[in-house]
Amino acid sequence: MNGNQKLEACNQDRQDFIQYFSQIVKVLTEDELGHPETGDAIAWLKEVLEYNAMGGKYNWGLTVLQAFRELVEPRKQDAESLQWALTVGWCVEMLQAFFLVSDDIMDSSLTRRGQNCWYQKPGIGLDAVNDALLLEACINRLLKLYCREQLYYLNLLQLFLQSSYQTEIGQTLDLITAPQGHVDLGRYTEKKYKSLVKYKTAFYSFYLPVVADMYMAGIDGDKEHASATRILLEMGEFFQIQDDYLDLFGDPSVTGKVGTDIQDNKCSCLVVQCLLRATQQQCQILEENYGQKDPEKVAQAKAPHEALDLPAVFLKSEEDSYSRLKSLVEQYSAPLPPAIFWN
Amino acid sequence: MNGNQKLEACNQDRQDFIQYFSQIVKVLTEDELGHPETGDAIAWLKEVLEYNAMGGKYNWGLTVLQAFRELVEPRKQDAESLQWALTVGWCVEMLQAFFLVSDDIMDSSLTRRGQNCWYQKPGIGLDAVNDALLLEACINRLLKLYCREQLYYLNLLQLFLQSSYQTEIGQTLDLITAPQGHVDLGRYTEKKYKSLVKYKTAFYSFYLPVVADMYMAGIDGDKEHASATRILLEMGEFFQIQDDYLDLFGDPSVTGKVGTDIQDNKCSCLVVQCLLRATQQQCQILEENYGQKDPEKVAQAKAPHEALDLPAVFLKSEEDSYSRLKSLVEQYSAPLPPAIFWN
Repeated sequence: MNGNQKLEACNQDRQDFIQYFSQIVKVLTEDELGHPETGDAIAWLKEVLEYNAMGGKYNWGLTVLQAFRELVEPRKQDAESLQWALTVGWCVEMLQAFFLVSDDIMDSSLTRRGQNCWYQKPGIGLDAVNDALLLEACINRLLKLYCREQLYYLNLLQLFLQSSYQTEIGQTLDLITAPQGHVDLGRYTEKKYKSLVKYKTAFYSFYLPVVADMYMAGIDGDKEHASATRILLEMGEFFQIQDDYLDLFGDPSVTGKVGTDIQDNKCSCLVVQCLLRATQQQCQILEENYGQKDPEKVAQAKAPHEALDLPAVFLKSEEDSYSRLKSLVEQYSAPLPPAIFWN
Repeated sequence: MNGNQKLEACNQDRQDFIQYFSQIVKVLTEDELGHPETGDAIAWLKEVLEYNAMGGKYNWGLTVLQAFRELVEPRKQDAESLQWALTVGWCVEMLQAFFLVSDDIMDSSLTRRGQNCWYQKPGIGLDAVNDALLLEACINRLLKLYCREQLYYLNLLQLFLQSSYQTEIGQTLDLITAPQGHVDLGRYTEKKYKSLVKYKTAFYSFYLPVVADMYMAGIDGDKEHASATRILLEMGEFFQIQDDYLDLFGDPSVTGKVGTDIQDNKCSCLVVQCLLRATQQQCQILEENYGQKDPEKVAQAKAPHEALDLPAVFLKSEEDSYSRLKSLVEQYSAPLPPAIFWN
């Protein structure tokens, strides 16, 4: 495929993936809508699904579909197995929706994906905790409905459960490192940053989608999984660092969002690097201004980042990371096609 | 066994069960306490477990142990399989702890099991949502750690996932039927009461513990499961009706708690029966006073219950239910020993 064809295939995948959502909702609700006992609850579940699982970027769900094409022998990519890949992709999206609904409650967030957070909607409030649990339960229901006859069913089920647990451990680390209303930059070390990224983000967004495909393709050897894990977690870190950089130094007209890591007291890679290089005076400025909503304080906290030329530090370290990542893929991806890691 | 011996065996079971908790905590935490990446989160998990999984009545967890003894051939009750039964019993307790921590957040409750609700503790607040998720994740981790080599592993895993989902559907029904700050007694019908009890309580507390043992004993036939389900859900309803009765008419010096169903706007079997029998005037009294904290209003709402002699209605219906339940067990329990239903 040339570049244009590839782009077109990507767009087609995205369209197919989004379109498949109505099938997902149907299969999760059709048997019980109108059921004399549970009908009302199922109608509610439908609303929860439509509000919270749609409207994101679908990157992680789409990864399942795209890596599936690379990993599974073409003759085994029949209509039925493509349906399984679409379903597992939507399971990844459900997992993310489950985390976003609960994180928004914990973080007192106001908006998400350009609309009010679910728990912020009138009449919802903390009942959203149960709605998050319903989204989580949809994962297991979908896997059971579609894949229970497959040899890989148990592996997939365990993979999703393990990914949830690791993300919850990541959230715990985050809550311990940066408790609300309490700024302690002494905790923001490189080591802590790496654990946070690995557990809170990399497992469910980088590791999970590709490893799900590996199981679906019948690849379950320890060696292959160890190599894939190593590459995928490194990739998660690489992308998180870019994300952190763009939050502070990205152009909102390009990224489409205005960063809030400084006011949100985030353990960003930038503040970690800034603290490593800061003079005592710059440290004090950070201590006094980081993690506060006041725009003046945000600007004060940004100043040491600029004075220490962190964009240049970032660009250098990005190059290094990228070549490390490339050689990691070259060295360890076999027998998997390297393309599954570069979706 | 005579009555005394049976009581002694029960006490011994209870003691063994409670003692086994330290083993559960150990196995969930020992590998990672002090781990450079996740150690802090695991230390936190330990606190969450110790505060929230202990201190209840352990009835449902103990049921697993006791029904296990009845269901599994004595020669197969070796030390190892008893360990599995204890572990699965603790999984049931973890499921309950997970629901209690989340329900307390949703209901804005203050105390639980004689201590502050977890989310009410200083410095916890809504972060407790994640702690509830950690408790849930412990179930799957325990099953994997102890039972992954057993033939019944997948059945158990699915049973716990299905029980969670059904309970969450029950919680959804409850939130729709009795939303906070909004009393609408028109929704409190017998039909609605039965669905609420079945989904919110009976599945996880009556169905789950016994059916878990059935799988552990290798009983997985559809017919046996259908019969057990029928009996266990009926039992859940029977016990919930008793519970509702005691909430309003029980003697606190015997039950150990002062009821709050009226002020909590609960869809209790008593208010359902009261509404069925009430005059228009009594209905109005209920409408005006049910679901409010003011002790004077609680007394007003209680009055129609007494005027309509609901204790007598209850006693009559209790007798009927009990004999229906007895004949249900006689008719459907075989080939299972009836004793597993009367723990």
